[in-house]
Amino acid sequence: MDSALPIGVFDSGIGGLTVLKALLERLPGESFLYLGDTARLPYGTKTAATVERYALQAVQELVRRGVKAVVIACNTASSAALPALTAAHPELPVVGVIEPGAAAAVAATTSGRIAVLATEGTVRGGAYQREILKRLPAAQVVAVPATLFVALAEEGWVQGEVAEAAARRYLAPLFGAGAQQPDTLVLGCTHFPPLADAIRGVVGPAVQVVDSAFTSAGVLARLLEARGVRSSAAAAGNVGFLVTDGEERFARVGPVFLGRPIDQAAVVRVDL
Amino acid sequence: MDSALPIGVFDSGIGGLTVLKALLERLPGESFLYLGDTARLPYGTKTAATVERYALQAVQELVRRGVKAVVIACNTASSAALPALTAAHPELPVVGVIEPGAAAAVAATTSGRIAVLATEGTVRGGAYQREILKRLPAAQVVAVPATLFVALAEEGWVQGEVAEAAARRYLAPLFGAGAQQPDTLVLGCTHFPPLADAIRGVVGPAVQVVDSAFTSAGVLARLLEARGVRSSAAAAGNVGFLVTDGEERFARVGPVFLGRPIDQAAVVRVDL
Repeated sequence: MDSALPIGVFDSGIGGLTVLKALLERLPGESFLYLGDTARLPYGTKTAATVERYALQAVQELVRRGVKAVVIACNTASSAALPALTAAHPELPVVGVIEPGAAAAVAATTSGRIAVLATEGTVRGGAYQREILKRLPAAQVVAVPATLFVALAEEGWVQGEVAEAAARRYLAPLFGAGAQQPDTLVLGCTHFPPLADAIRGVVGPAVQVVDSAFTSAGVLARLLEARGVRSSAAAAGNVGFLVTDGEERFARVGPVFLGRPIDQAAVVRVDL
Repeated sequence: MDSALPIGVFDSGIGGLTVLKALLERLPGESFLYLGDTARLPYGTKTAATVERYALQAVQELVRRGVKAVVIACNTASSAALPALTAAHPELPVVGVIEPGAAAAVAATTSGRIAVLATEGTVRGGAYQREILKRLPAAQVVAVPATLFVALAEEGWVQGEVAEAAARRYLAPLFGAGAQQPDTLVLGCTHFPPLADAIRGVVGPAVQVVDSAFTSAGVLARLLEARGVRSSAAAAGNVGFLVTDGEERFARVGPVFLGRPIDQAAVVRVDL
């Protein structure tokens, strides 16, 4: 595997840019090729079989263009497609966001009571629950589907009255007063980190909020190190963007997630 | 055209069930075949070219199964694909929701100030604005993209604090006190009728709220009458459902829009 190749980052659309943001911070010597399947998002309400099929097409496209590793920067796709992706590309390091997120939650909890906030598809798939229990069999895991948070982040309404009311509606039943409330909350969807303030406003400062984007970037860094394909090439920090629809919208809404501007000229449309 | 054939109803997903509800009320002698492209929803944030391609595939599938007319029960698809659909199927009556909605708005307004609440794609396409101005050139039309309403309806959060806060955020700037506020509001997305109470709470009782679903049903009824293909067959009221993903979710969330239960056994998966 050529260490100068970029790292592929695949997401259902735009939320995975929070993972790319973490990767850029953690791996400043690398270049990246991001693919957002914006024509077919959201994945969170689709069945596992459909998500698996879409993910295989997307990673095939990244491989065709040349990448040395792939991060599945979408919890729903990590949950539904990771085994199939690993089987289809046995030579390629493929890192999902769920195992690193589960490991970080287990490291953070002291009470063993962990809440996971995710899309409907991720919750139904049960991957977070399984990965947490594999590491901490005595854990009590509650998974809450919070589909509306995806739309709130996409709309850029990450603060203010609507975000706060939605956070209350999803989380207040779980984080009301009482000794049984979780001490750790996993943001199990890449769309959710921009909503962290509204979420913290409900759960309070004593709860550990785990963002799997950062943990995943660390896992990838160690994997590249182990394989000897870390780069410090001249292309460091370069990012290419591929989308399956809506280049203009991607460049306009993306900065909410990436935390820096996106030049529309750097966003290329592909058909999968 | 065989009058005993069902009427095809096509939507990007689940919101078109509000149109099917109006059709069932207005045309009790007919049977229906509904196709929701749930694998690829939402259409509202996609480009017109992509929506046109998807709509052509969907209507082709309805035609293959046998329908005597098609209602495009999706504002985004009506806006993007109606000319292409009519060209592809010159013999088939194809009714969109935008022209009937625009006509109803023009009939309802006295001040000529009309607001249209729609998805990003419908607003950007400008079809409502054009159809209203064609009928009432002196009209002042304001189109407001309200993407989050789609997610709210899909989540079933059509009443309560979050829906009300979102309605305020979208509509209060337009319907604050002042002589210049619109006297007519078009619900330009089939997902929005279940949110009518929250919307009315902001705009107040003096504003006419136009739901294009009902007007479209009337247009179709007159069209079938004119072609002599009205039915009063034994299959009256029968409805078949085709979806491209998520039969279980469709049967679970659909009743919010259809206003009656959906038997999951009547929901069939198709690939487009």
